[in-house]
Amino acid sequence: GNELLDLERAKSSISVEKLSDYLFGHELIAKRDQILEILQSEKVFDKSQNYTLGRVEKFPLALARAKKLRQLKVKHNWSYVEEAIAQGLVGEPHPYGLHASMFLVTLRDQTTPEQQEMFLKKAENYEIIGCYAQTELGHGSNVRGLETLAIWDPSDKTFIIHSPHLTASKWWIGSLGRTANYAVVMAQLVIDRKPYGPHPFVVQIRDLKTHQPLEGIHVGDIGPKFGYNTMDNGFLLFNKVKIPHSHMLARFSGVDPATSKYIRPASASLVYGTMVFVRSHIVFESGSVLARGVTIAIRYCAVRRQFQDRDAQDRAGEQQVLNYTMVQIRLLPLLAATFAFHFTGKAMMALYEANQKRMLKSEKPNNETNRTAGPEELNPVTDLLADLHATSCGLKALASTSAGEGLEACRRACGGHGYSSYSGIGSWYADYLPTLTWEGDNYMLTQQVSRYLLKSARSVLQGKAQNNDTCKILKQFLERRDMGAAFDILGKDEDIVSAFAWRASFLTFEALKHRDEEKQSWNSLLVDFWRLSTAHSQYLVVKNFYEALHDKSMGEALDTETITLLRQLFRLYALHTLENEASEFYTSSAVTVRQIQLARTKAVMQLLEEIRPHAIRLVDSWRFPDWQLDSSLGRYDGKVYEDLFHRASELNPLNALTIDPYPDSEVMVKRDGRDKMGAKL
Amino acid sequence: GNELLDLERAKSSISVEKLSDYLFGHELIAKRDQILEILQSEKVFDKSQNYTLGRVEKFPLALARAKKLRQLKVKHNWSYVEEAIAQGLVGEPHPYGLHASMFLVTLRDQTTPEQQEMFLKKAENYEIIGCYAQTELGHGSNVRGLETLAIWDPSDKTFIIHSPHLTASKWWIGSLGRTANYAVVMAQLVIDRKPYGPHPFVVQIRDLKTHQPLEGIHVGDIGPKFGYNTMDNGFLLFNKVKIPHSHMLARFSGVDPATSKYIRPASASLVYGTMVFVRSHIVFESGSVLARGVTIAIRYCAVRRQFQDRDAQDRAGEQQVLNYTMVQIRLLPLLAATFAFHFTGKAMMALYEANQKRMLKSEKPNNETNRTAGPEELNPVTDLLADLHATSCGLKALASTSAGEGLEACRRACGGHGYSSYSGIGSWYADYLPTLTWEGDNYMLTQQVSRYLLKSARSVLQGKAQNNDTCKILKQFLERRDMGAAFDILGKDEDIVSAFAWRASFLTFEALKHRDEEKQSWNSLLVDFWRLSTAHSQYLVVKNFYEALHDKSMGEALDTETITLLRQLFRLYALHTLENEASEFYTSSAVTVRQIQLARTKAVMQLLEEIRPHAIRLVDSWRFPDWQLDSSLGRYDGKVYEDLFHRASELNPLNALTIDPYPDSEVMVKRDGRDKMGAKL
Ligand SMILES: Cc1cc2nc3c(=O)[nH]c(=O)nc-3n(C[C@H](O)[C@H](O)[C@H](O)COP(=O)(O)OP(=O)(O)OC[C@H]3O[C@@H](n4cnc5c(N)ncnc54)[C@H](O)[C@@H]3O)c2cc1C
Ligand SMILES: Cc1cc2nc3c(=O)[nH]c(=O)nc-3n(C[C@H](O)[C@H](O)[C@H](O)COP(=O)(O)OP(=O)(O)OC[C@H]3O[C@@H](n4cnc5c(N)ncnc54)[C@H](O)[C@@H]3O)c2cc1C
Repeated sequence: GNELLDLERAKSSISVEKLSDYLFGHELIAKRDQILEILQSEKVFDKSQNYTLGRVEKFPLALARAKKLRQLKVKHNWSYVEEAIAQGLVGEPHPYGLHASMFLVTLRDQTTPEQQEMFLKKAENYEIIGCYAQTELGHGSNVRGLETLAIWDPSDKTFIIHSPHLTASKWWIGSLGRTANYAVVMAQLVIDRKPYGPHPFVVQIRDLKTHQPLEGIHVGDIGPKFGYNTMDNGFLLFNKVKIPHSHMLARFSGVDPATSKYIRPASASLVYGTMVFVRSHIVFESGSVLARGVTIAIRYCAVRRQFQDRDAQDRAGEQQVLNYTMVQIRLLPLLAATFAFHFTGKAMMALYEANQKRMLKSEKPNNETNRTAGPEELNPVTDLLADLHATSCGLKALASTSAGEGLEACRRACGGHGYSSYSGIGSWYADYLPTLTWEGDNYMLTQQVSRYLLKSARSVLQGKAQNNDTCKILKQFLERRDMGAAFDILGKDEDIVSAFAWRASFLTFEALKHRDEEKQSWNSLLVDFWRLSTAHSQYLVVKNFYEALHDKSMGEALDTETITLLRQLFRLYALHTLENEASEFYTSSAVTVRQIQLARTKAVMQLLEEIRPHAIRLVDSWRFPDWQLDSSLGRYDGKVYEDLFHRASELNPLNALTIDPYPDSEVMVKRDGRDKMGAKL
Repeated sequence: GNELLDLERAKSSISVEKLSDYLFGHELIAKRDQILEILQSEKVFDKSQNYTLGRVEKFPLALARAKKLRQLKVKHNWSYVEEAIAQGLVGEPHPYGLHASMFLVTLRDQTTPEQQEMFLKKAENYEIIGCYAQTELGHGSNVRGLETLAIWDPSDKTFIIHSPHLTASKWWIGSLGRTANYAVVMAQLVIDRKPYGPHPFVVQIRDLKTHQPLEGIHVGDIGPKFGYNTMDNGFLLFNKVKIPHSHMLARFSGVDPATSKYIRPASASLVYGTMVFVRSHIVFESGSVLARGVTIAIRYCAVRRQFQDRDAQDRAGEQQVLNYTMVQIRLLPLLAATFAFHFTGKAMMALYEANQKRMLKSEKPNNETNRTAGPEELNPVTDLLADLHATSCGLKALASTSAGEGLEACRRACGGHGYSSYSGIGSWYADYLPTLTWEGDNYMLTQQVSRYLLKSARSVLQGKAQNNDTCKILKQFLERRDMGAAFDILGKDEDIVSAFAWRASFLTFEALKHRDEEKQSWNSLLVDFWRLSTAHSQYLVVKNFYEALHDKSMGEALDTETITLLRQLFRLYALHTLENEASEFYTSSAVTVRQIQLARTKAVMQLLEEIRPHAIRLVDSWRFPDWQLDSSLGRYDGKVYEDLFHRASELNPLNALTIDPYPDSEVMVKRDGRDKMGAKL
């Protein structure tokens, strides 16, 4: 193994350090190394049994790790970013997960100052441990359909939290199953028999000392899952539980305790902002999520030799399987995608932050809770937010689907050994999969994107277009529609971007025609909408990757060889996507059939050849420590077989059992030597 | 839940019984029900903890089940088919798996009569338990690269079995890790320093009494896997282990103990036949493998309601998500695929059996071990076998990839609840995935298919075409090539089949041009080959489905309504595939761009609408008992939520743990009530 990766690294002269410094920042990597050292010295983070434990053994260990992480954070005074780095290195979901994210975020964003005193401080100190209880057994995507009730009782100024049916049971709630003693509960506010929609309430659910459920509360873990088994996703049923008026999170809306009148929310744009943030973050992370699998698969396929080349003359020895074009076409476009998503996510996060700043500025002069939202045309801040929101929905769907499916492609590219847990891909994939479903099911999100694109197209047609990129490409399309496109996708990079913009715009106006002129039902258009959203998001990825390549900072930080290589990755991502979606590109006349054929047979194949020698250095630039990958196949030093063998014969507890193999014997285990093996484990 | 599925069943009038009797045979289903009753009454088959156990707990339980199955087989005198039914109902891989399949098959097929006496009888009685040890740490696909040695020692007429390197360690060997005491070992035969390639040897590896490894043998389980954790895949290293001459399986080849001369194999066609059988069987099974996921997803999506229809006027109530076209397009083509693969697999198995019969006939007159294989042109039996072989390779790749990926699509279609182990899809999917890699990695197989198609195309061009379907469609393509195609895919079913044949033929001749005229390297064409193989296999599926619809037996067994519905499924499978592969269809001029657009926007959408009302009855016809599905979401009675809740709150052992939630406390579990819960579990 060893020497093969050395050779690979010698073949390419791009600087791994410079590239990774440019991608992540030099300091971040240095910090990461410090944290890594701290974690590795703690016995509780030993990973050697992660892949064998059952659910009931996994969970207390995950809790112990979560506690230790919290202790280390306090001890070393880690920032939020440092905490996230540590978490990423440990690499498994943990029982404080939803406390540390959604519970705290919600308390920060949606409380009044008094409520911050009451809840937020304790939560930040882990004196209370919380979760975010929105989804129910019967409702997830359709939040308005939630059944849990919060009935205002004017007699004693309390809310009665109640689950009227089994399907009202909260379900899937992270950290709730065994850990949390508090919950933010989304419940239908009811005043005087009138429903006002779902609102957030803080409810204590377990005793702070005994940790037993409080009266009227039925709570527990929902059971084993495809992955995420180190997390206690929970259920929660209320039998008329009373909570005081102060427990309704009242920053944006509330009930006037004196009059029992509902106080309407003024502007939801901040909450809206949180969703944009979370989704942009998923886009950003999708690059490194996928890169983990790509790193493992590419390293292994460079170490793995199998068969002689069929055209080889003599006994040339076996090929590294990474030399087979059929392996390259599966892995190198994914390698390109890791960079594409990285740059796209980075741009999204930057846009989000710029907008948050502008929003805070524009909010200051107003009294926020009394401000009414102006007509859309007059509000550049929320308009930009609307664009950002739609963009983040579409990209979240595209990027997380690509990352999830890409990981499985990586696993399969490793042949039989990919199926071993020691490959390190399987459990990573299984833990990642919910990302395709939560924060908006990826299929459902495409409807939101399309709704926005239709709206934008209508405004363009009416000459009231806003000044954002979406409207710009739609306008450009309309202007050139009758002249045709004739993009030179094989010659010019900017024409590739234009071709993606053209196809997305074409599909937008097609969908508009179906909906507005032909009056087709919404439901009959869902498949078109899904295609449309995908097309638009692919355009955004291609555009963001292109723009990153032309950003001044890149020219300053990297040498031309590296930039040329990144440009090849850009073209590979774009042209490979284009050939996969060929029929939309030619139907829209963005390109000709001949161009697509050439892209497929010539351009893409040539790019594979150009990128191949740099594959190892490119994955090295993602800088995953071996400890994080926890993979025999993805080791930096390429000692694949030694590591597989070591784990199987030294760390595998099943080998401590001597069984009785005969069907007529009632004895299964003749001898259990796990105690003796224990020393090793 | 309940009433929704009742309504669904009331909406359609196709006869579930008639359809399933036609598909599987009435007797088989009756037998299945008998066996089901037997299994359910055995405590060891209780499934309630399957999803929570860790590796070390899972395995002894799986062994206990394997033993019980064996005992029941003996007690009830089950046939091979009945044993397979029982195994399917239990639904997990088991430690006798490779003994009962490859070990016994190899002993049957490759032994001399004396060896049958020596090994086969004991193996059939489970006095010895074996496995099939071919793959090594360093070699899987490339069998010729195996490193384990079998060195003939003329001095004492023995073979020395030896592993010269770590990579020579046998790896992945099912039933070897803890269970087997014998192995068929594929090793490089070496006589007088000359290698003769891999051959099968029978080696005892563990003591029959103590079950300890014999001297010179290092054996164990290879560790946890993505799935298949009820099986003990093992490793095996030999340190110069001596075995007698009689332990080389000598039906086809051997070493003359007197002269130390190698005895060449005469005809490998029987062994070849085994591969065809195994692959055809994978094709046949892929239908029901996928149907399991499709049954669960379609039933759940008919019970699940989420959102009101966007165009609905008043408070119409929430839609069943199966009514959304975006859900339909994900699930109904998969439903169609289950039938497509079922009929294709059935046809393959029939062809295989017919050919075996013919082969046995033609073999009788000869003295098999001395017969030399005649030139290909003169041997219709092996020619047909070659066609069958290529066909089974391509179909194995297509069908198992479709089934594996289809299961994940089913899981995702179930939204959040799909991620729960109680959905019953996840572990089924994880256990199935190796099928995409073993018996020929699905990507690699496409090279074999292409090689065969190129050979066929050459023979057609030379006017020496054989009389099989592959050559027929190639000839037809050549004849009409210059006239063009103009298939009426939207009007005539037989034209759909022709369009698929046309595209496959077009790609064959394209590939031939690249290889023979342009002299492109084999490696540079691998991606084209993969496309070609996929195209050819899709043609075969479409053709077989079409032919099944026109088989007399179907007209006799089913009423026209059901046949019409099956025809719609045929068209959905074909047209949906066609639109996904659109660019190959128009580049080959099999269809026009306009036809593809119409297929996409009109024909497919209309088929979804037509099939939708019958979806539940169609999945019902697969007749999976609830016990087999082991799924909250896929229950026949639709009591989805009740079952999820019951399992989570009553059967989930994690809920017996009371934890200490505070980060500063070193206590994790304050109370473990599993003993008390035990009664329930
Ligand atoms: C591991 C995990 C952790 C989670 N953690 C939390 C948590 O901490 N807190 C919390 O509140 N929730 C949590 N959730 C819940 C999660 O947010 C929901 O599962 C998710 O929103 C999907 O909703 P659903 O399950 O209701 O899907 P459904 O809406 O029921 O979707 C089912 C199917 O129907 C389709 N569909 C539904 N409506 C439409 C439509 N209108 N048009 C077309 N198709 C449609 C979907 O695409 C999907 O295929 C978690 C889920 C998981 C898996
Ligand atoms: C659960 C499980 C059970 C098993 N049970 C058994 C058993 O009981 N007995 C047994 O003997 N074996 C068993 N196997 C082994 C199995 O047969 C092999 O893993 C399988 O044949 C794949 O071989 P490989 O792992 O060497 O893949 P490799 O050949 O190493 O493939 C690695 C990658 O390289 C690609 N590749 C390789 N060669 C080429 C080429 N020439 N051109 C293009 N691409 C190429 C492949 O497509 C793949 O992506 C089992 C495997 C699993 C996962």
